[in-house]
Amino acid sequence: MTREELFENIKRKRSFLCVGLDTDINKIPEHLFEDEDAMFAFNKAIIDATADLCVAYKPNLAFYESLGIAGWEVLERTVEYIRSNYPDQFIIADAKRGDIGNTSAMYARCFFGNMDFDTVTVAPYMGEDSVSPFLTYPGKWVTLLALTSNKGAFDFQFTEDKETGKKLFEQVLETSKKWGNEDNMMYVVGATKADMLQDIRKIIPNNFLLVPGVGAQGGSLQAVAEFGMNDMCGLLVNSSRAIIYADSTENFAEAARAEALKVQQEMDALLTKKGI
Amino acid sequence: MTREELFENIKRKRSFLCVGLDTDINKIPEHLFEDEDAMFAFNKAIIDATADLCVAYKPNLAFYESLGIAGWEVLERTVEYIRSNYPDQFIIADAKRGDIGNTSAMYARCFFGNMDFDTVTVAPYMGEDSVSPFLTYPGKWVTLLALTSNKGAFDFQFTEDKETGKKLFEQVLETSKKWGNEDNMMYVVGATKADMLQDIRKIIPNNFLLVPGVGAQGGSLQAVAEFGMNDMCGLLVNSSRAIIYADSTENFAEAARAEALKVQQEMDALLTKKGI
Repeated sequence: MTREELFENIKRKRSFLCVGLDTDINKIPEHLFEDEDAMFAFNKAIIDATADLCVAYKPNLAFYESLGIAGWEVLERTVEYIRSNYPDQFIIADAKRGDIGNTSAMYARCFFGNMDFDTVTVAPYMGEDSVSPFLTYPGKWVTLLALTSNKGAFDFQFTEDKETGKKLFEQVLETSKKWGNEDNMMYVVGATKADMLQDIRKIIPNNFLLVPGVGAQGGSLQAVAEFGMNDMCGLLVNSSRAIIYADSTENFAEAARAEALKVQQEMDALLTKKGI
Repeated sequence: MTREELFENIKRKRSFLCVGLDTDINKIPEHLFEDEDAMFAFNKAIIDATADLCVAYKPNLAFYESLGIAGWEVLERTVEYIRSNYPDQFIIADAKRGDIGNTSAMYARCFFGNMDFDTVTVAPYMGEDSVSPFLTYPGKWVTLLALTSNKGAFDFQFTEDKETGKKLFEQVLETSKKWGNEDNMMYVVGATKADMLQDIRKIIPNNFLLVPGVGAQGGSLQAVAEFGMNDMCGLLVNSSRAIIYADSTENFAEAARAEALKVQQEMDALLTKKGI
């Protein structure tokens, strides 16, 4: 998907919501286990209930891998289901991969060749040759970790460089933006650190940002939009637990829809305020 | 496996070799494809040919994931095969994982609960809460990236901290060693930067190091041993391509054994030189 197509979807749907499919077998409503295929049934119901309210889905790989082959199968079928039924969705493999060149090339084949994801989250620690193999697939994106939403972000991401005074996450942004361009590089910037978005936008004014941490992790959507939105929106704001586990009864999909609708309506107002 | 058990295996086998199972379906000898199960057959033959010469195996997850469910199945069976037939082997999931706490907990369940790996490689960028869930399994280890063997290591790992003057990888070592201890934390230090091992040993004198980059990537075993070996050896030196693709004919397993034997003999001499 191109940046322009993504922006068109955002304008048309009045939403920049990404629904995180952190599907935990232990949190799925009990009645779904009457079906053998509970995990996929859960994903399908969540997707069908929210697809008109969001522009992206983000399966969190760990939740699928933790179930081995069975989980991997649900992952593949979920991506196929979204692709076949909702072709306007941007599909994010939240996998935090990254390794030496020949190995990153294999991960890229996994997510872009074998499966049809639009992007994969990549960790920057190993530098350019760990990221560039993901950029060789036309129309596909890298979503690079810059400033994450967790407490551990303070361990290393704020280290200031002796020569330039720049923090590590700023250095990651400045260095990595030369590896790709605004049409194939996005960045993870946590909503829990929304006040830093102003400075981040000075370094990467046009790149899309994937923003986790709204909802369960406590970040504010208003603050993210105020400091992070650009003329093409430039934001995908993820919510996982607050939407998909809104209710644990037979009503779970409707409850997820109601939560997604609340977020979408807030996003609509924020887009309007920005003149989009 | 405990640190003492690992050291006992090293002394008994006169080897600190780790064989990397970077099994590429495109590099497997052609005759194996007469069998449907070529990838597992390859791994089994390599393992049977080298198990008495090495103390660890390191499947590289990307190579299995790139084949989807079929690859994941080979991975699970390979781990089971090693565990059942060669219980003295230390099994490393080279996966470079790491995410927010609840997600790292799922990855830990994948590698330590669902599969029976001894350790998983973890990227440090997201800090303590991305690493600590892997440390909650008794007898299991974290292998944290510190200084990697690739060119991209120079992009961020050498950034010097304004206050302390320490390089990022040194900061990773100093900060993270408090998260665990010498019995559950190892570090990745690339053989291509062996001259830096002396300084690294000042920070972490006793932790085991997983050293990639000998062989195909050009690192020297002599230099690694000279600067990195401690009284309990403290080294696992990995070789992947140089061993497993030593030959592409029906003779591949014997050729792999011959390569592993060369390395093991060199290691024997290095251990003797150290008085081990």
